[in-house]
Amino acid sequence: MAAASRMVVIGGNATGMAAASQARRLKGPGELEIVVVERGDVTSYSSCGIPYWVAGDVTDEADLVVRTPEEHRERDIEVRLCTEAVELDPAARRVRVRGADESSGPGEWLAYDQLVLATGARPLRPPLPGIDAPGVHGVQTLDDGRALIRALEGGELDSARGPRRAVVIGAGYIGVEMSEALVRRGYEVTVLDQAEQPMTTLDPDMGALVHEAMDALGIRTLTGTAVTAIRTGADGRVRAVATEDAEHPADIVVLGLGVRPETGLARAAGLPLGESGGLLTDLSLRVRGHHDIWAGGDCVEVLDLVGGRTRHIALGTHANKHGQIIGANIGGDYGTFPGVVGTAVSKICDLEIARTGLLEQQAADLGLRYVAVTVRSTSRAGYFPGATPLHVKMTAEHRTGRLLGCQIVGREGAGKRVDVAAVALTARMTVEQLVALDLGYAPPFSPVWDPVLVAARKAVKAVREAAAD
Amino acid sequence: MAAASRMVVIGGNATGMAAASQARRLKGPGELEIVVVERGDVTSYSSCGIPYWVAGDVTDEADLVVRTPEEHRERDIEVRLCTEAVELDPAARRVRVRGADESSGPGEWLAYDQLVLATGARPLRPPLPGIDAPGVHGVQTLDDGRALIRALEGGELDSARGPRRAVVIGAGYIGVEMSEALVRRGYEVTVLDQAEQPMTTLDPDMGALVHEAMDALGIRTLTGTAVTAIRTGADGRVRAVATEDAEHPADIVVLGLGVRPETGLARAAGLPLGESGGLLTDLSLRVRGHHDIWAGGDCVEVLDLVGGRTRHIALGTHANKHGQIIGANIGGDYGTFPGVVGTAVSKICDLEIARTGLLEQQAADLGLRYVAVTVRSTSRAGYFPGATPLHVKMTAEHRTGRLLGCQIVGREGAGKRVDVAAVALTARMTVEQLVALDLGYAPPFSPVWDPVLVAARKAVKAVREAAAD
Repeated sequence: MAAASRMVVIGGNATGMAAASQARRLKGPGELEIVVVERGDVTSYSSCGIPYWVAGDVTDEADLVVRTPEEHRERDIEVRLCTEAVELDPAARRVRVRGADESSGPGEWLAYDQLVLATGARPLRPPLPGIDAPGVHGVQTLDDGRALIRALEGGELDSARGPRRAVVIGAGYIGVEMSEALVRRGYEVTVLDQAEQPMTTLDPDMGALVHEAMDALGIRTLTGTAVTAIRTGADGRVRAVATEDAEHPADIVVLGLGVRPETGLARAAGLPLGESGGLLTDLSLRVRGHHDIWAGGDCVEVLDLVGGRTRHIALGTHANKHGQIIGANIGGDYGTFPGVVGTAVSKICDLEIARTGLLEQQAADLGLRYVAVTVRSTSRAGYFPGATPLHVKMTAEHRTGRLLGCQIVGREGAGKRVDVAAVALTARMTVEQLVALDLGYAPPFSPVWDPVLVAARKAVKAVREAAAD
Repeated sequence: MAAASRMVVIGGNATGMAAASQARRLKGPGELEIVVVERGDVTSYSSCGIPYWVAGDVTDEADLVVRTPEEHRERDIEVRLCTEAVELDPAARRVRVRGADESSGPGEWLAYDQLVLATGARPLRPPLPGIDAPGVHGVQTLDDGRALIRALEGGELDSARGPRRAVVIGAGYIGVEMSEALVRRGYEVTVLDQAEQPMTTLDPDMGALVHEAMDALGIRTLTGTAVTAIRTGADGRVRAVATEDAEHPADIVVLGLGVRPETGLARAAGLPLGESGGLLTDLSLRVRGHHDIWAGGDCVEVLDLVGGRTRHIALGTHANKHGQIIGANIGGDYGTFPGVVGTAVSKICDLEIARTGLLEQQAADLGLRYVAVTVRSTSRAGYFPGATPLHVKMTAEHRTGRLLGCQIVGREGAGKRVDVAAVALTARMTVEQLVALDLGYAPPFSPVWDPVLVAARKAVKAVREAAAD
């Protein structure tokens, strides 16, 4: 019998463990040895769940762990925890790994037949004075979440000082989710962001709706505001966040500045990276030019099917799909990841925020000419109790009328309505085609014209008027 | 100046008034005279809202009226209420109208240049003994709703008799919605239906989930049960509903048996009708073979884009679109109605019920070979509070893998999730393409694999296995 070939996976989270599991389903241990190298001490956890754990929606850390290292090991997947990959040698098909503890020496070379890079992303940490002070928290890993919850629950704070104050740096997904979590923990929350509006994944006019809602929730949201330093007290702990013209007192600071692909290992080995620093792969998720190296999840760029270029989009749902596809391909089955349309949903308290496709600025940067319309409709028939306002923005390409993007801000059910536009973008539908869609209608679910169709009707008109000019 | 041409609309509800309004937007009264003939005494009301009015969700009847006759008249649309069209003479381009009161004589011939048939549908009333007895209610018109509410509020009943009992005949959309309304009014409710399961717009296995939910709500649901007679008491009022082997006491009976196209006028004039009795039109909604007669809404058959044939589907959302398209065409603009995919949503209390595409039986009747899969997922990430079970059924064509249908039963947000499948059906996507869809993900909105994608994955596998057989 031939010796088993070896699959080495760098990173034991969504992509890495999904790839390992799927490959194992297809090939037994006699055929394929699977070794996963993970820097941390857990596997397969939902990092997107961390803000909800901090908020108290999720109370048990274990709920965020989809599968423990032991569970993976029971399925004949070798998992090396607290182990780092420090050097990749594609020509010799080997990767050098060592204990994550810095005293652990040079480590050892691990040979592979197939390598999966699932190194994820790292949160942005600007080089501000004081950024490393106690009381400044990230929210990327379970360790981060645990430390933050401990701090919030008062272990580190002097509760005699009155209402506690938190400053969140960054008003994107994580910043907005964390501001909800902190408000619900009873904090006075200030959110600081350099941009004109929170949620720069939305156009500014839609971001303004989020801004209003945050104000109404008592979250002080200062936009156009750059942080210059984090101030510490005599005890070395964070005391305030300084901006150009003010100081914002803070008992705790949360960093919610987004992430960048974690591709230092790949870069040093000369693997192809895109503008964002994410790995470039072909549709089967093989790293371009390397038939035995695969990559997926938050460390790669994905093809944006609407804009026709690759982008870095860190999302658990893509990461899981990637892993499943890589595992299928290594296991001898077949799969491709055709790309994304840029769908994302989020919420702050009961305000749901959704987007898909291109922002106006992205369309303009790509040289596309477009029309943009916004409508205000309702979540249910106007006469039905509980109907709430729903704002839908839609952009369509000039002349062709092809849908380019859709953003929705509203309450109950607003978020997942964007999926209709996501499917339409995938199918490259025009807004004229959207108007004819047969969407579910009944008074408790929608007005007789679904809000997405109302927006599409207005977009059709705008496309026609623009063509007539 | 040339004399204005005349548009005559038969039926002043969704389609008719939308057509009139749209045509008026495009052509002023000097160019186009618009006359609407309506049998009842109201216009533009939401008949889909009536069950919710009876339930008490909607308290003001006026809320169900989108636009009154006076509002239409202010926009130069002539509305003749309580007037019936009794004869159509296409060769002479004229329609005979008279007062709906039977004593009103032969009426008068009204000439038209363009005729719109928007006569809607009539509820099924089986020829049962006792069907016309006081206490037997339909729920089609505002008059029906008003009469039923008056009866439910006790005007007609002897409240000393203890808990009041209602029997609903028919367990389709209307029957299910009415059973909720009656339960919420404090009635003991029995629902009778000949079919194997409630909601025959679902496959039997999905209908069984609705059956279970109805049982849990305390609604006695007897399927496979044909009604043989309605029994009356000495006072002539309804007393019970008889089936082959039992009598079900009833203080009130509600008919929820579905509707048929109201096309007597068209049939007598020799206009083309489909198998269901609905008018057949071309894509611009002109009656086939008649360049000056248009038809839309509940009196026509629409093209089923999945099955490739016409069907009768009575739905307010289609009716409104049809009116808008007919009005655009008569007004000199352009519009077509490409067809439907068969989407419908409903609910009973907090259980949401959705379907799109073909049922298994419909696919089989069309000679299609298919695979069917069912999955149980959750509405949110499994660890997120408030996550509820979601059942998704999906059918796909053998060999091609083309999506044929999707049904969803669950609680919060279940209903509108079917829209994803509706768009995918319109785009003729395969289940393999569905798996790759970029749908909105965040823990409060969806598991990392959206339930629709989980079903699609299983369908992909089933298609492959069937092909290998």
